[in-house]
Amino acid sequence: MIYLDHAAATPLSEKAFKAMEPYFADFFFNPSAAYLPAVDVRHHYEAAKDEIAHVIGAKGADLVMTSGATESINLAFSIVQSNTDAEVLISAVEHAAVTENARRAGDYQTIKVDENGRVDLEDFALKLTPKTQFVSVCLVCSELGAIQPISDLARIIQAERERRAFAGESTPLYFHCDASQGLGLMEVKVARLGVDLLTLNAAKIYGPKGIGTLYAGHNVRLRPLTVGGGQEMGLRSGTENVPATMAFAAAIAEAEKHINSERKRLADIKRDLRKNLEDLPNIIFLGKDKVQLPSFLPISLPGLDAERLIFALEDRHVYVSTGAACSASKGIKSPTLVAIGLDDEAIAGSLRISMGKLTTPENAIEFSKILHEVVENELRRLDK
Amino acid sequence: MIYLDHAAATPLSEKAFKAMEPYFADFFFNPSAAYLPAVDVRHHYEAAKDEIAHVIGAKGADLVMTSGATESINLAFSIVQSNTDAEVLISAVEHAAVTENARRAGDYQTIKVDENGRVDLEDFALKLTPKTQFVSVCLVCSELGAIQPISDLARIIQAERERRAFAGESTPLYFHCDASQGLGLMEVKVARLGVDLLTLNAAKIYGPKGIGTLYAGHNVRLRPLTVGGGQEMGLRSGTENVPATMAFAAAIAEAEKHINSERKRLADIKRDLRKNLEDLPNIIFLGKDKVQLPSFLPISLPGLDAERLIFALEDRHVYVSTGAACSASKGIKSPTLVAIGLDDEAIAGSLRISMGKLTTPENAIEFSKILHEVVENELRRLDK
Repeated sequence: MIYLDHAAATPLSEKAFKAMEPYFADFFFNPSAAYLPAVDVRHHYEAAKDEIAHVIGAKGADLVMTSGATESINLAFSIVQSNTDAEVLISAVEHAAVTENARRAGDYQTIKVDENGRVDLEDFALKLTPKTQFVSVCLVCSELGAIQPISDLARIIQAERERRAFAGESTPLYFHCDASQGLGLMEVKVARLGVDLLTLNAAKIYGPKGIGTLYAGHNVRLRPLTVGGGQEMGLRSGTENVPATMAFAAAIAEAEKHINSERKRLADIKRDLRKNLEDLPNIIFLGKDKVQLPSFLPISLPGLDAERLIFALEDRHVYVSTGAACSASKGIKSPTLVAIGLDDEAIAGSLRISMGKLTTPENAIEFSKILHEVVENELRRLDK
Repeated sequence: MIYLDHAAATPLSEKAFKAMEPYFADFFFNPSAAYLPAVDVRHHYEAAKDEIAHVIGAKGADLVMTSGATESINLAFSIVQSNTDAEVLISAVEHAAVTENARRAGDYQTIKVDENGRVDLEDFALKLTPKTQFVSVCLVCSELGAIQPISDLARIIQAERERRAFAGESTPLYFHCDASQGLGLMEVKVARLGVDLLTLNAAKIYGPKGIGTLYAGHNVRLRPLTVGGGQEMGLRSGTENVPATMAFAAAIAEAEKHINSERKRLADIKRDLRKNLEDLPNIIFLGKDKVQLPSFLPISLPGLDAERLIFALEDRHVYVSTGAACSASKGIKSPTLVAIGLDDEAIAGSLRISMGKLTTPENAIEFSKILHEVVENELRRLDK
């Protein structure tokens, strides 16, 4: 198997598994119970939250554990839900969880991106109005791997906040960043990024599915999506998912530890792979290397049908995707690829190759060979 | 260790663990991806949902998988959230997730319970008005183990629906049942119960934490709490928690299989334990055996401080609780115990003993011995 869809899902790491295992049947206690073993479990849980928070330069108390990135994003948007006056700004290359929340919030605008999928700072400054209350931009675009200029956006936001303060305007302005992609290959520190809210997801960094977190700065007042037992400081009721949180902490610590070596390793593989793919007819490499996560190599083969390529690759046990898994499964045209100005033919022929732990120099070469064969077959079939 | 807090948390069963294990690092694919191994994972996931649904006499498509009972309950209440005209009726012995949602919905009333914690049908019929839109009553009260007359309530609700139809009134009326407790010790079939919505929780039946489901009948139109990729028919976005769902299916199938033997086993242990505890000074057995789940043996020792007893028992590696873990941890007086008419002294001295798989006739006897010693010590200390 050659798995090149790490942006969609990652296998649980051995360390993450080992971290969660004792909490299934041994330390299974409800962390809200009063007796000692349950109190111990609570302490382990809080320590795990601290470890996760530490990686992004925060404290455990700043985190609300959730069931994943989608819930975190929804919780972040809770600030502006049912606030009809709030204007929302998002980039044109966000995950559906962000675009759907923006749509639900009512009045929202989309910040343009350049041909590499990076947000246009001028367009942002233009669209940021005195009524804007919420800005949401991803750290790394999940389809193109484009790294967004988060701290530049934060500076513009900070200037607007200062302007409001001078003008005596009380409209709040929050900055949320969906960092589902990027963690483990780049440093993610909330202070340096300048964000108020940050979404993290364990399932993209070799942690388990079903666990994520939302960082919220001290000035942020979230509205809980779920009420009940009052867990997570009343912001997210429900018995804490202790095993998954333990595994998340192990996964993020592991990811953090290998940032530099893994980034270099993948950048090397990507460089060679890119070279090997250059002779594919009409190939377009989407995005620009300098502002792209080294794990991403999105391409387009205009004139070919990506869906057909995926199935032909599948026959050879090679797994890649057309876009974000969730939008791809609905068969809609990727808004991200539209936003970077691709024409319909290029969109129809686009593949998202996303590398990770399962990628080796050897299987990247093997992939290149197979893709060449698959493309040749397709061209022969089409008599091109 | 003698664990008598099964109503708060249960250890993951071997079968549930085995069911989830392959989905961590082998079949880890995103079920929304297009290639075959991911499609296989989707099929396994859908099959697991069908298995869960089958146990309650429903279909997989009727279920929305959630992160647990609290989220399920919040999703059920989504029907009446932000509908200011809706009147809500809940019992006086609900979990905090139900009471907090009722509070959030606005206009709600509480159905009285008798001294055993069972809802009063007459009071219910009285409080059910032409404006009532949502009724939520638990299958089994999580503090007393009282089994609620769900199908009797459903009949009254059905009569009111028919009255409305005759009168040409269009106000809808939904019946939700929180069946977090009870599964595995009694049959739970949605048609027989007559409910429109049913909450299930894996963590109480030896499944994993972080997974639950909401059954919703065909006439029910839920409003999603989270939007995004559109998973779960658009009702609950976010990548599906495949491993936890596989484990949930295994756990519920196992629970279902052993209903009769486990009910009998626990009933026998409970009968003997109850006899052994009868000579404790002033002991009150809360609830009535006939309408109580056999796993529950809530008691009160008026004049003693339950918190102190819990810590003294903890020293002997015996773990029991004072009430529902989440309300107990907040140090508030249990609304359930108030509702059944206990005075403050009886409330302060109440223990929830909840049995399950870890309970054996031997450790029940040992528990009785230890509780006698602990109580004697306390009485000596208090010079009673």
